Amino acid sequence: MRSSDKVAFDNKYNEFVKIINEELKEIIPKKETSEKIIYEAMEYSILAGGKRIRPVLSLAVCEMLNGDIKDVLPFACAIEMIHTYSLIHDDLPAMDNDDLRRGKPTNHKVYGEAIAILAGDALLTYAFEFMTYNTLYVLCKENFESKIKAIHFIAKSSGFSGLIGGQVMDLEFENKTVSSEMLEYMNKCKTGALIKAAVLAPAIILGLDKNKMDCLDAYANSIGLAFQIKDDILDAESSFEVLGKKAGKDVNKGKATFVTLYGLNEAKAKLDTLINESISSLEIFAEKADFLKNLAFFIKERIK
Amino acid sequence: MRSSDKVAFDNKYNEFVKIINEELKEIIPKKETSEKIIYEAMEYSILAGGKRIRPVLSLAVCEMLNGDIKDVLPFACAIEMIHTYSLIHDDLPAMDNDDLRRGKPTNHKVYGEAIAILAGDALLTYAFEFMTYNTLYVLCKENFESKIKAIHFIAKSSGFSGLIGGQVMDLEFENKTVSSEMLEYMNKCKTGALIKAAVLAPAIILGLDKNKMDCLDAYANSIGLAFQIKDDILDAESSFEVLGKKAGKDVNKGKATFVTLYGLNEAKAKLDTLINESISSLEIFAEKADFLKNLAFFIKERIK
Repeated sequence: MRSSDKVAFDNKYNEFVKIINEELKEIIPKKETSEKIIYEAMEYSILAGGKRIRPVLSLAVCEMLNGDIKDVLPFACAIEMIHTYSLIHDDLPAMDNDDLRRGKPTNHKVYGEAIAILAGDALLTYAFEFMTYNTLYVLCKENFESKIKAIHFIAKSSGFSGLIGGQVMDLEFENKTVSSEMLEYMNKCKTGALIKAAVLAPAIILGLDKNKMDCLDAYANSIGLAFQIKDDILDAESSFEVLGKKAGKDVNKGKATFVTLYGLNEAKAKLDTLINESISSLEIFAEKADFLKNLAFFIKERIK
Repeated sequence: MRSSDKVAFDNKYNEFVKIINEELKEIIPKKETSEKIIYEAMEYSILAGGKRIRPVLSLAVCEMLNGDIKDVLPFACAIEMIHTYSLIHDDLPAMDNDDLRRGKPTNHKVYGEAIAILAGDALLTYAFEFMTYNTLYVLCKENFESKIKAIHFIAKSSGFSGLIGGQVMDLEFENKTVSSEMLEYMNKCKTGALIKAAVLAPAIILGLDKNKMDCLDAYANSIGLAFQIKDDILDAESSFEVLGKKAGKDVNKGKATFVTLYGLNEAKAKLDTLINESISSLEIFAEKADFLKNLAFFIKERIK
């Protein structure tokens, strides 16, 4: 990326993140009730920062397709809620047992395990409450059925054939010999499914034709896998100070990663290939896809 | 209930349960994949039996309103999935730490905590995938928007202002002095919200008028609270052998119940009042409501 492009990309990215963060801040109720701890716990994790890559992808695809960002924002935020719930549950002692996330104590370290489990459950449930509420009572009624199709796709991507299935494989594969096919399939579910939902949900809502949908699908496949390979590279190469979470933890836990399987150099080469493939997939959208192409570079070059 | 009525009621109840159980048996996929453990864990809990009161309520309300049971069945099953997920998470060591449920080892005792958390997450997510899938691709398109309204209502009833909010209060109230208002509000959320969703979802789908909706709402309020009071009475009076789970555990945990707060006799009197109120609420539906009235008696007279 040229440095002038880089500035333009950063500005646009930050603009999207601002819209997303303002919305996320609004949508968790602030109630002075005996159960207010649950709202605090939800908000603690949903506002803990993070790159917001998934909802940024949704807004960027919407803009590329000349859609109205307001129409897609509730779905983008719901996807971020689902992502956040999955992190809260993933960090639990019974799962990855992590004390830190994004440089801050994990949810259960602050609120205890019981509330952390319930805060995750509540974010997951609220994602569906929020999407159906907005579709029924807030957004224009245009594309009503398409919006329900998007909700269904998001649910499917988050469930046993997507995100949760990937988590299960992650547990099952610990200390086992894992082939590159198994590792790729696991990541297609664990990280890829929700990234794909973020990319395709706006396209489903806006009724994109099959040909272009296939191109976006290919883009999502490539960046989804690239995102995980980059994560594995960072886990192997980076430090706690930069990541805001423990580095090297996958290897320590006996988890197969793209780095343990291929070595650093080959993992980096695979990352390059995927980024190039993701960019080629967007040719059909011409210069309208510039931001999404730069986002692929961003995934490759991020340092945390 | 006269004994001839009792036989007719039991037959009808069992007929509903058969429809529900057959559907629940079908809907969890059976896949021979590396992540198949999640399907087994979901099925273990969803097919562990139970009274199926929530989905039976949905089918019964549907029938009373001359609706087609097929149209309501996916929502009834989704509500049972949500109920089952909440039990799996509630039984976890970090929550109520129960080893037995419905006379069988709890989910985490069989599959471990990590899979139990994920099986709960998967059932919750699948409930929404299943409802949207059926609404979009299986059921007739009649009342399409009403069905989405029902999904939204079910989500809201399951979230922080319903089921999960109630669970949080349950945790927060442990070893605290709890007033009868607090206890009633907690149960309105914890048990009442999903029971109400089961009663009202078919009415929302079928577009019931406001007046009759209010009557059903009152019925749901009364039986929801009655259900919990009966639970508390059973917890105080019954035994493990009958309940299939530990008796007396609420008191041992320092939890306020209607029995600890009012004493057994007053709790039983309150239960009687609520059952009578629930039956009065259904007058507008005349003899069409006979099954739902008998269901109120069933809630009062159940021994587990």
